[in-house]
Amino acid sequence: MMNNAQQKANPQKLEQLVSLALQKVGVSRAEADLTANILVDADLRGIDSHGVINLYSYYIKGIQTGRINNKPEIKIVPGSPTTASVDGDNGLGFVISHKAMSETIRMAKEMGTGWTTVYNSNHCGAGAYYTLMAARENMIGILFSTGGSTVAGPGGKERMIGNNVIAFAAPGDKHGPFVLDMAPTMAIANKLHMLQWEGKSMPEGWAVDSEGRPITDPNVYFAEKGAVLPLGSTASHGVHKGFGLLLVADILTGLLSGDGGSMFRRKGAESHAFCALRIDAFPTGGGFGQLMDEMIGKLHAAPTVEGADSMKYPGEKENVTYRERSANGIPLKENVVKDLREMCGELELSMDSIWVN
Amino acid sequence: MMNNAQQKANPQKLEQLVSLALQKVGVSRAEADLTANILVDADLRGIDSHGVINLYSYYIKGIQTGRINNKPEIKIVPGSPTTASVDGDNGLGFVISHKAMSETIRMAKEMGTGWTTVYNSNHCGAGAYYTLMAARENMIGILFSTGGSTVAGPGGKERMIGNNVIAFAAPGDKHGPFVLDMAPTMAIANKLHMLQWEGKSMPEGWAVDSEGRPITDPNVYFAEKGAVLPLGSTASHGVHKGFGLLLVADILTGLLSGDGGSMFRRKGAESHAFCALRIDAFPTGGGFGQLMDEMIGKLHAAPTVEGADSMKYPGEKENVTYRERSANGIPLKENVVKDLREMCGELELSMDSIWVN
Repeated sequence: MMNNAQQKANPQKLEQLVSLALQKVGVSRAEADLTANILVDADLRGIDSHGVINLYSYYIKGIQTGRINNKPEIKIVPGSPTTASVDGDNGLGFVISHKAMSETIRMAKEMGTGWTTVYNSNHCGAGAYYTLMAARENMIGILFSTGGSTVAGPGGKERMIGNNVIAFAAPGDKHGPFVLDMAPTMAIANKLHMLQWEGKSMPEGWAVDSEGRPITDPNVYFAEKGAVLPLGSTASHGVHKGFGLLLVADILTGLLSGDGGSMFRRKGAESHAFCALRIDAFPTGGGFGQLMDEMIGKLHAAPTVEGADSMKYPGEKENVTYRERSANGIPLKENVVKDLREMCGELELSMDSIWVN
Repeated sequence: MMNNAQQKANPQKLEQLVSLALQKVGVSRAEADLTANILVDADLRGIDSHGVINLYSYYIKGIQTGRINNKPEIKIVPGSPTTASVDGDNGLGFVISHKAMSETIRMAKEMGTGWTTVYNSNHCGAGAYYTLMAARENMIGILFSTGGSTVAGPGGKERMIGNNVIAFAAPGDKHGPFVLDMAPTMAIANKLHMLQWEGKSMPEGWAVDSEGRPITDPNVYFAEKGAVLPLGSTASHGVHKGFGLLLVADILTGLLSGDGGSMFRRKGAESHAFCALRIDAFPTGGGFGQLMDEMIGKLHAAPTVEGADSMKYPGEKENVTYRERSANGIPLKENVVKDLREMCGELELSMDSIWVN
């Protein structure tokens, strides 16, 4: 069973392993534990593309090669009672983002709202995690982040802007939490990688080659440095809207943090922005959770065309997966297991104990 | 020349006429002046769909039939140093939104940021205006608003959610301001009306009929109560992202203001939310205008495919139109002139003096 593609890991034990691996490359116990919690949370929510799949190749090797600083001095510089700038000192994006969102929530508790911009950071995993920190405090949480520079502008023929992220979370009463975590583009690079592995083609409209010609073969995308298109894809389908939202994310993260955004990346790899909004800081916000439940009820009851699923709220599928995987374990794909095994070999760790029996 | 389709109005004189018309139906001088300024500003920016075209049929008649309150008592209820709820008392959306954004800016001046939610409001015209109020104060301005309930959910077959609005403005130094003012949907109803008038069909993917089947004939849309689709249009092109953004707008406006959003509209026609973010409240925000200029420069210089225009920043076309029309007058289409003339007849006003000679 040990080499089965659907082999399941115990979440707590997987988290311990991730933390130990990070400690082996010099991350402090507290920061390793935190990073492990955030990474495994993505796997629990079914966001496999942002979980332990990236641990060895991206984060561990990033630290080993000096690309990521394992002992960052993260500086929070306040600017007003509700705003701050954070210098991540090129550390792990998880640790930096958790610190920035914690500060944002602290300001919102005191003042109603908080906004933080972050520069000198790295990939922070799934944006959902940080917005959910706010939702658990009865706040609305919002995140913007720069992403990998893989996206062409309207009519463009080369990668010019990041596959930037917009995430938003809000609590419900019985239903929820609501979590939208998206890039306003046709696809993220991980999705193209997955199609490549599976030998499948991309839907039309997702990407162009380096001459700006439409392509559907992911191999061409990677071989010729193709570019993903903004959400909307074409002029008649609103590509300027997706592009506009990408620029907004750059402005709130990179420009407001002095880094210049995904087109420049002057000071560091990634920039983020965090906002928290206390729901009970609005005199009319009292029945919020109930209204959220009613809105979700309306979605579930909406008639759909034959063959279509009933409508779901953003985050619904992930909330279901979270409960299921928390109870039954996290299925790890063969390539992920292989990767973790290689990492354990190098770092002299054992992964024998992580499996659900 | 008086009946020519490209007949041009002097902006100041058109504004005076709009204000006089509103005063004739009982709006106070100050509120009529303000509304006139906002409506004509949309025409100056080339957003003809949100300007004086709607004055008679929507606002004047709305007041005459009692649908809009011409003497609203707008109440601002503070909730924290940075948040407030606004009851618009069913007044003109322009007046209510101007008041709400002014309060939002006041809070941001003092505290760094401000957030306001508004209920019991009506259509507030182009969202750009209110976000630009913030940009002129060296702030980032953000607006969300419910819109007409014309949009189906993913896989849906009936109108269930508003054609909601997201607007965002930020100042530049030499370039700018940057203004994104969009609905995360395939089209707004006004665009479908325009195609209908012109006898043109809609691009595929914009709308469905009441059975959820794709349609391209705008007549079918209006005759059979068709529904517009969220940005993305189909599952493979990210319709869940557009739909998610529509829900976010409902949450920030309708749910946070207690109104329930565009799916319920419990207390009034429209809800809005306003945010202002002081740029110099971020310690790193110092070079913001220059970074904005550099970002825009990068857009302008980006290579595009043959036949495509060079890339523009959101609001660029409107900024150019604004300068041109401020200098040379606002061209009014024949149907708009006819409408205004009818209004002037009824309200005993003369429009002879508004033309550029």
